[in-house]
Order: sequence, then C-alpha cells, then structure tokens
Amino acid sequence: MRNSNLYEKLAKLAVNMGVNVQKGQPLLVKANIQDVEFVRMISKEAYEAGASNVIVDWSDEKLTRYQFQYQNLEELKNIPDWVHDKNKYLQEQRVCSLRVESDCPGGLKDLDQEKISAYSQAFSEKMHDLVDYTMKNIGQWSIVALPSQDWAELVFPKLNPKEAYDALEKAIFSASRVDENSDPEQNWREHDARLTAYAKTMTNYQFTKLHFISELGTDLEVGLVEDNIWEGGGSISASGVHFEPNIPTEEVFSMPHKDKVNGIVYASKPLSYSGKVIENFWFRFENGKVVEYGAEKEKEALDKLVHFDEGSSHLGEVALVPYNSPISQSGILFFNTLFDENAACHLALGRAYPENIKGGLTDDEESLKKRGMNTSFQHVDFMFGTKEMKVDGIQKDGTVVPVFRKGNFVIGETL
Amino acid sequence: MRNSNLYEKLAKLAVNMGVNVQKGQPLLVKANIQDVEFVRMISKEAYEAGASNVIVDWSDEKLTRYQFQYQNLEELKNIPDWVHDKNKYLQEQRVCSLRVESDCPGGLKDLDQEKISAYSQAFSEKMHDLVDYTMKNIGQWSIVALPSQDWAELVFPKLNPKEAYDALEKAIFSASRVDENSDPEQNWREHDARLTAYAKTMTNYQFTKLHFISELGTDLEVGLVEDNIWEGGGSISASGVHFEPNIPTEEVFSMPHKDKVNGIVYASKPLSYSGKVIENFWFRFENGKVVEYGAEKEKEALDKLVHFDEGSSHLGEVALVPYNSPISQSGILFFNTLFDENAACHLALGRAYPENIKGGLTDDEESLKKRGMNTSFQHVDFMFGTKEMKVDGIQKDGTVVPVFRKGNFVIGETL
Repeated sequence: MRNSNLYEKLAKLAVNMGVNVQKGQPLLVKANIQDVEFVRMISKEAYEAGASNVIVDWSDEKLTRYQFQYQNLEELKNIPDWVHDKNKYLQEQRVCSLRVESDCPGGLKDLDQEKISAYSQAFSEKMHDLVDYTMKNIGQWSIVALPSQDWAELVFPKLNPKEAYDALEKAIFSASRVDENSDPEQNWREHDARLTAYAKTMTNYQFTKLHFISELGTDLEVGLVEDNIWEGGGSISASGVHFEPNIPTEEVFSMPHKDKVNGIVYASKPLSYSGKVIENFWFRFENGKVVEYGAEKEKEALDKLVHFDEGSSHLGEVALVPYNSPISQSGILFFNTLFDENAACHLALGRAYPENIKGGLTDDEESLKKRGMNTSFQHVDFMFGTKEMKVDGIQKDGTVVPVFRKGNFVIGETL
Repeated sequence: MRNSNLYEKLAKLAVNMGVNVQKGQPLLVKANIQDVEFVRMISKEAYEAGASNVIVDWSDEKLTRYQFQYQNLEELKNIPDWVHDKNKYLQEQRVCSLRVESDCPGGLKDLDQEKISAYSQAFSEKMHDLVDYTMKNIGQWSIVALPSQDWAELVFPKLNPKEAYDALEKAIFSASRVDENSDPEQNWREHDARLTAYAKTMTNYQFTKLHFISELGTDLEVGLVEDNIWEGGGSISASGVHFEPNIPTEEVFSMPHKDKVNGIVYASKPLSYSGKVIENFWFRFENGKVVEYGAEKEKEALDKLVHFDEGSSHLGEVALVPYNSPISQSGILFFNTLFDENAACHLALGRAYPENIKGGLTDDEESLKKRGMNTSFQHVDFMFGTKEMKVDGIQKDGTVVPVFRKGNFVIGETL
C-alpha cells in the first residue's frame, strides 16, 4: 500500500456511496486476504457510519487453488447448508454487501475447468433462493477494485514489476475518481447526476432503435424493447437507499429487442472469454440473431460463445460510454469487466437485465420474453465503441435524434 | 517469515502429528490473517495427507478490536444459528481442528472487559452442546504457535523490534522441537514416548500423595484421588487416532484430591491474571483449601482468583515438568499458557480434568466430586517448580519413592 491516504478515500467512498451503509445495518465484505489493510479501513468507516456489524468473507487465491487441485468432485459440489443459512440470515438482517476485487483475471485458468464449473453450478443451485436480493436490488451492494501484483503484470507486461503495480494502482484510482486533490464523494455526486440525467433523457425519448456507425465498419441497427428503461449511475434499494453498484461506472444501458437487431458490428477491443483472448472479431445480425461472425485470433472461442445456448446468439444489453470517459482515455485493457465494460460503448450477447424494461422486476419471465427480453445462462460484454462513433436514435414517428457524434454524447443531459 | 524451511517443518509436524489428519477427514484451521503463508503450507500438507477439505476460520486483531469498540452489547451477544450449525456440521463430518496462535497476550486488555466477557459467555452458551467434541477428545485437535511482532516486543521489551522478533521465533521453534538439523516428527516420537512412559510409571505407582520441597520455601503435600491417572504427551481420539493436543508440551499431570492438600507453596514465576502480573506470591493450604496467601505485587488480583467461586480455592491439577526441559532452560516468560505451563512444575486452582481419574469421562459429576474431583468455572495454572525441586511419592503402605531430585525426574521411565 503505497499511499494510504488514497486507500482511505476509496474506503470512505465504498462505504458511504458504494453500499451507503445505514445506521443499524450489517455489512458483509468479500475480500482477499492480501487486502486486509483496506478491509480494516472499510470496517472502521462502516462502524463509524453506524453499521451494526461488519462480517468479512475472506478468500485467498492459493488456498482456492489447493481446493480445486486436491478436492474431489463430490466434495467440491457439496455446499453445506450453513453456507446457505449464513447468507439467508444476513439477508433477513437486511445486510448490504461489498466486494473488493483484486484477483488476477484468469488466475485459475490452468486448473481443471470442469471442476470449477461444477462447483460454480452447485453453488448457484444451493443459493438459488438468495440471488434476487442483489439481482433485484433489495439490499445495497457494490464492487470496488484494488491493484495486485499478478493483475498488474498481466495488464502491463512490458513494465518491471514495481512500475506495473504503480501503473495499475494509478489507473484504478483514476478510474474510481479518487485522487489527492478532490473529494471523491463530491466527484461521484456530480458524475452520478450526469449519468442519471443521460439515462433519463434516453428513457424519455423512447427510441424504437439506435443506429451505430463506426470507422471500423460497424453499421448496426439495435431495436429496443417497448417501454425501455435506461439505467446509469446509482441504483435505489427496495427500502429506498441510493447506492453505487459499480465503482467505477461510466455506462448508461438498456434492453435491445432480442429479435430486432440487424447489420454488422466490429469489436474495438479484444475479448477475454473461456481463457482465450479473441481479437479483431465481428458479428452480422439478422432479425436479432448472429448469422455470421469472424475473428483474426481464437475464432473457436467465438464458436463456443455464440453456440453456448439459444439466447447466447442474441443481444441482452446495449450500453453507451463516451469516448472521453477516463477509462476509455487511459487506453488500458484491464481484463476485468468492472473496468473494461466502462471503456467503450458495448453490447452483450446473452441474458438481459429485467430492470431495463417497465415492470421487468415484477412481471413473469414468459411475458417478458414476449415483449422481447432475451434470456440465457451467460451474459458476455464486448466493446465496439470508437473515437468516431456516431449514434442516432430513431423515434416511433421516424424522427432521428443525434445521440453520439465523434464518440461522445451530443444529446442533452436532461429533457 | 525469515526461514520458510522451519515453517514448512512446523506445518508438517502440526498436520501429521498435531492433528494427524486422516484420509477423507476435513480439517478446520483457526488462524490470524498475518499467518496466511503458514496456513497455505498447512493446507497443502493436509490435502497431501488426504484431507477431504480444509476450512479456515480467519481472525484479525484489528477487526476484532473494532467489533468490541463499536458493536453494542446486544449485537455482540447475538451469536447467529449458522455459527453453531457450521461447527455442528463439521463435527458430524468428524473434523479435526488446528489452532495457530500468534496473538499478543493481553492485546485486548484496554478494551471494555465486560463486553468481552459478555461475548465469551454468549458464545459458550450457544456452543454448549459442541464442547465435548474436543473436551472429550472425540476428534483430534491441536494448538501450535507462531511469532508475531507485538508478542515478541512484550516478551523481549529490551531488544529492538527485529531482535525481539527473531528471539521469539527462535524460542518458539526450539520449544516446538523444530530445527534445521533434525526431523521434528522423529523428535516428537521420542519425546512423546518419554512423556507417556513417565505418565505410565506415575499411574502404576498409585501414589496417595506427593510431597514437594523447594529452595523457595515450598513444603507441600498434595493428596491424589484414588485411581488417579497421569497423562502426558499425545492423546487418542474416540476413533483411535493418536494426536498431540499441544505443541509444545512437557508436562505429565494428574488430579489432586480437592480436600487433601496441606502446607505452603511459593510460586517460582509471575502469574498473568485478569490483566495484572502477580509477582512473588504464595498459598497456604489446609485440608485442600487455600487458607492464607500473599503476594509482593498485585495481591488484589489474587483475591479475585481465590474467591472467584467455591472451587477456585482448591486444586484441580498437579503437573510435573523437569527443570531441564527446553522451555524451562530458555528462562523466557511467554505470557502464554501453551508455553508457560510447560516451563515448570505447576498447580492449578479450579476445575480438574476428568480424564485424570479412572471412569472420569463416563461417570457423573456428583460421584466424581465424592471421589475428590474439584469443580469450578475457572482453571488457573501457576508455576512453582525450581532448580532444586525435590518431589517424593508416598504409596498407600507408606513407602516413599523419590520422583524428582534437583528439579528433574529420578523415577524410572517405565515400571
């Protein structure tokens, strides 16, 4: 920890704006053991903000590796009741939860992937009744990131270890809008207000489709569902508490209609999928479905992605990120969705977010599918935003509204 | 971690002789976050020995401090069901458990002691049905120690921080019989065989009392219960697995008759009790009860100790530790029972161990009390062994057998 003052600022931000812990509310922190000093800061801040209790779920990549190396499949898939009951109890106590990410992306990729998948699936099944708590924003939750040596060397392979660490640290704090000379919470209030205003503007227009044109060759029409809702910045929990699920966040995003996407899209950044890095790839859509695709590198990984299940060849998210946003300007590929999805306009193949359609959090899945919501067991973001990106919004009556010019918003922040 | 080779050796020893984890058995490790590297070694060793799973309960002194500082009493006393159920589940899986101690003794003494007591009591009550698992050796358990900076500076206040750490590290490894040039497991097999043989010898003699004389003025007759059992070295779990509950251990110990202790005993080392260090103290016993006592420093703490409850003015343990044992020879006061009780012959005021009387693990408490077993809610060891300690054993027929001369065993190792 090179500059503990910045870490203190990030801890305050995570507690007060990230999860926005309320008086008498417990906080669950999920963190790596290497980040113990930061977790101590988080704990102190949370108690001072009135948290009733701070519980920490620790993990350690080396211990996790041993688990996957040595435990047999049966043992791995056996998730004891108490693990479920602990989380159920915390939800009954109206917990808020904070994840502190610093693991090296792909750090487990040399292990038996079938074992890892089997464990993940068993865990998801065991926790099945508990996912709504965060998926539907019943309680506040947030994710922040910290640098780690392995991750730094992955992102900056040409720097020496110390320089790489410093560079990743600087990039993370900058993207998280934490610096020496300003108040991060004030930065975030302003930033959140901007994102919320853009989202509100986009929602108010009720575009039937967006038309994307880029200098890479993208010429894509993305139809949107009726009663689409654009989201950006903070969210509000079921009990009315404002929180920031992602630190950083730069996107405003909504729901494509699963059958109304046509044209071609060229990716503007590599995609890390299934342990491979896919480069210079493209998709051609007809009536919502990927009908053709290609890649300069690792096309087989694209095959897997597109053919994973029925919904994985349709879109589940369309997101706008200005080219002048700090992560985009850094030009860094973090290999971590928290950052990379905030680097450029992106699309996701797979599952859509029900919050992006009116009534989505309460309506049943069948009727949402009929309204155009895509479903899938995966959700994979890929970037296609560029410096020259042009986006037009088309309204029901055919009116064309300029949304992006030269990679940035030109639409008003509020209507 | 200055010399990882020694730590590897200690980890192997803890896994293979301490808990002696069996194929298919889970291992629960309780450790401080600062000891993560050692826990990784433990985990790897345990899996290689065939452990089905290694679960770690992490703690961090700073986070514990925040808990006691900020949480209110009601929150502290609320031990959720899942904490109990987790341990119950592990016991059902026939877990073995290892504690790695490195906390600074008395590290929480500046905090509100009533809160700490209230928490401990609530925790004990919640776990009430689970204590037999270790108390009655149903599963294997063990404790090992590692150095920490705070602890080192408490033990060696005159050394600079680095020297203090090195000195504590050296003392712990030496006491644990781990060094560069020998096989710790072989050391322990020999050591354990010696302790077991002394215990067997002492049990076979069935002494009615022991007579202690020291150069400090001690002249004490400690009556023993009939059918006394002397214990030393390893234990055997309910399923027949040998394990070493304490690393290090140097004592062989048995059960005094609660009403048959007479004479005077002078302590040979300070006693840390209730946050105070009591120095140069003595007790006079009549018919098993402390009838007079004194101390050069902190006599009020002795008042508390003796008057804690009915049983706290009677003896519950008598233990023989040779003056030539390594901890004794080091002359170091560790302020930690795992070490200090192995530095010299000692007595304990308070609760006796039922394993030290024939049938003690199965007979009911009332009949054990009638046979002379002391009961109390506390058990406080104090040292009275010296360089010149003389101990005689007196048999039923009056035969006097020399047990200790000049601080060391003179009795045969086996009969």
